[in-house]
Amino acid sequence: MHLPKINNSNCMKIRIITIGDEILIGQIVDTNSAWMASIFTESGFEISSIKSVGDTSSEIKKAIDEGFEEADIVLLTGGIGPTKDDITKNTLTEYFHTDLIFDEAVLENIQKLFTHKNYSLNELTRKQALVPRNSIVIQNRVGTAPILWFNRGEKVLVSMPGVPFEMKQAVTSEILPRLNAQFKGEQLFKHHFLVSGITESSLAALLSDFEDHLPAGFSLAYLPSYGVIRLRLSARGADNEKNLSLQAQKLKHLTKDYLVDDSEKSIEAILGHILKEKNLTISTAESCTGGFIAHKIISVSGASAYFQGSIVSYSNRIKTLSLDVSSDDIETFGAVSREVVEQMAVHVAEKMGTDCSIAVSGIMGPDGGTPEKPVGTVWIGTCYRGKIYSKVYRMGTSREENIARTTNTAMLQMIKMIKQ
Amino acid sequence: MHLPKINNSNCMKIRIITIGDEILIGQIVDTNSAWMASIFTESGFEISSIKSVGDTSSEIKKAIDEGFEEADIVLLTGGIGPTKDDITKNTLTEYFHTDLIFDEAVLENIQKLFTHKNYSLNELTRKQALVPRNSIVIQNRVGTAPILWFNRGEKVLVSMPGVPFEMKQAVTSEILPRLNAQFKGEQLFKHHFLVSGITESSLAALLSDFEDHLPAGFSLAYLPSYGVIRLRLSARGADNEKNLSLQAQKLKHLTKDYLVDDSEKSIEAILGHILKEKNLTISTAESCTGGFIAHKIISVSGASAYFQGSIVSYSNRIKTLSLDVSSDDIETFGAVSREVVEQMAVHVAEKMGTDCSIAVSGIMGPDGGTPEKPVGTVWIGTCYRGKIYSKVYRMGTSREENIARTTNTAMLQMIKMIKQ
Repeated sequence: MHLPKINNSNCMKIRIITIGDEILIGQIVDTNSAWMASIFTESGFEISSIKSVGDTSSEIKKAIDEGFEEADIVLLTGGIGPTKDDITKNTLTEYFHTDLIFDEAVLENIQKLFTHKNYSLNELTRKQALVPRNSIVIQNRVGTAPILWFNRGEKVLVSMPGVPFEMKQAVTSEILPRLNAQFKGEQLFKHHFLVSGITESSLAALLSDFEDHLPAGFSLAYLPSYGVIRLRLSARGADNEKNLSLQAQKLKHLTKDYLVDDSEKSIEAILGHILKEKNLTISTAESCTGGFIAHKIISVSGASAYFQGSIVSYSNRIKTLSLDVSSDDIETFGAVSREVVEQMAVHVAEKMGTDCSIAVSGIMGPDGGTPEKPVGTVWIGTCYRGKIYSKVYRMGTSREENIARTTNTAMLQMIKMIKQ
Repeated sequence: MHLPKINNSNCMKIRIITIGDEILIGQIVDTNSAWMASIFTESGFEISSIKSVGDTSSEIKKAIDEGFEEADIVLLTGGIGPTKDDITKNTLTEYFHTDLIFDEAVLENIQKLFTHKNYSLNELTRKQALVPRNSIVIQNRVGTAPILWFNRGEKVLVSMPGVPFEMKQAVTSEILPRLNAQFKGEQLFKHHFLVSGITESSLAALLSDFEDHLPAGFSLAYLPSYGVIRLRLSARGADNEKNLSLQAQKLKHLTKDYLVDDSEKSIEAILGHILKEKNLTISTAESCTGGFIAHKIISVSGASAYFQGSIVSYSNRIKTLSLDVSSDDIETFGAVSREVVEQMAVHVAEKMGTDCSIAVSGIMGPDGGTPEKPVGTVWIGTCYRGKIYSKVYRMGTSREENIARTTNTAMLQMIKMIKQ
């Protein structure tokens, strides 16, 4: 119910502008903005807004004007390179009333990169060594387009390539250190909590009093996602660090009945961490999720230390054939039942020789629901060292949501069982 | 390389606004914008710009003002629900100089959802049934926050929840059909082609002459995604429909060596279609993709007609134990080898009694690469009625990209094998 309270007073503001027709037609997801927003927020800057515009000079100029009006720093990515007619560079040259000059150091950098990749230089590439006269040129160590830095009074504009790893390399090695030196912001301190088993509105009611008494400049953000809610408590400035820890202790106590973890980790990373710590192995037996739980588990780098494998038994025939589920039980209780999911869990652990196992069987929709077992009904069984726990859940109504919620809920049930 | 040529003249313009402090601090990537941009571009609208702002009334109003200035339609997502103080709804109530009234139908919808999930209603949730007096309320079938539609002269503003599946459900079932009805631009006619085995720049070179000779108002867009490229040839107006078909024939002929399908279907839907048509069943044996191929196959509703199941053999032990891969061969040739992947493919088809099977084994990174088998090396084996075909590929450098490309490439190899 409460907005994250951001203490605006001491923050230098940044407007992010991402340039490219491919963003406006939905061909690519603009991940650069979120990455930059996270890095600069972390360092004590505040993002005033993010805007995506096409490869059009007038639109870029308008976005820069707005940027200089609302922020101290304007960061641009994209609109660079021969296939884009270098729209950003040419627009900036006009915007800052200057002209293009040839930069020997940029050409050398391009030649070095091309030699490394065995490419030959063509006229289009050579053009990248032309830079606006009154810009500070920062070499791009991993690409051909230089980074351009403009000072305008107390304010700054930086233009970077749109290729994510080139932009990231430029930000971490050059832009962030330079901006930190020029604009000393206050550091942001944070505590994270992952809770489950409570709705967002009930949690807000539970924390209402706590939030009302948070000191000025402290903020609490709610980030719900498929059956879990992340809480982020934050404040700026070293002065607040100690008090923030005290508030975090309070919050931890208030949410203790729902708390899964007090870190920023994903659910699959939390599961992986516990398994590694306790030297346990795991396998999954999946029906309705079709392998998505296994996929999530291996998305954590290093999962081979604990994940052995999975049997996806989408048809009832495979439940019997590959997981030795009693066909009589399938007949009597249905595939979505305690009896079936428990056999799946026990047998996959036996077959793969793992300490733990997760099994799921449910109705994801859009079809297959009945009055007793509507779409969203899911049985989840978890095994831990020979013990079995199983429970039925009601997920949502859409197939995509049901698969995602079932996956999170199954991993959470496993985590809780191991922790107990 | 050519940029998608957008024919601006007859297009209704849309400004997208995404609302949320969590976007500005980089805690989440705004995927809603790209999804909406893609869907509405596809339907013949043009996105003028995308802006992300925080949960702040003044910023939201500013973004709306800009939106009405530059576009015909303003689409908002986010800033809704009890923990956000319903900032969007309250801001819109002010913006349109109206007040909040209680809507019985919204409360009924919430009650239905809560009953389904076994939640109990609290005061904060009940507040969601308050709606601005002069808005058209559209029920949210999969969540509690209603969709609000405002007319302002000839222009329209629609506010939707920020939760992706709620927003997607609202757009496809309600918003897009209504906007299509209200803004009868000239109908957009389209032809789609899915090609693989050629880079974007080589394809652009191949089609350069064709593109140069396209009639005015015709556009060809390139949409590359993890190893495949979608081509979209389009033109507006019934007058162009016949000529568009002729151009599509030419394009089909030009791309024939790389053409997978001439429809809008996803790869998993194309695979499903062929399997259903030929009355075939399929299973998968996955190492490095950890079940992602199976997950993609079952993401197509109705997959139970052909998909039986999968064995995810992440460890070498499980490759031997569950898939009878020779441990000597794993020792001699390595887990990422023709020998291993062919045994995986043949044995999973035998074990699950399916006509077809897909098997993959590769190095997804970031670790595990060697000079002979660098990160991105993947062997893919496919079986079709007792025949086996296997091939080695080099995917990319990041784990996420490698898993996605391997999944697409494996399904494509299966499709080609069945088609031949």
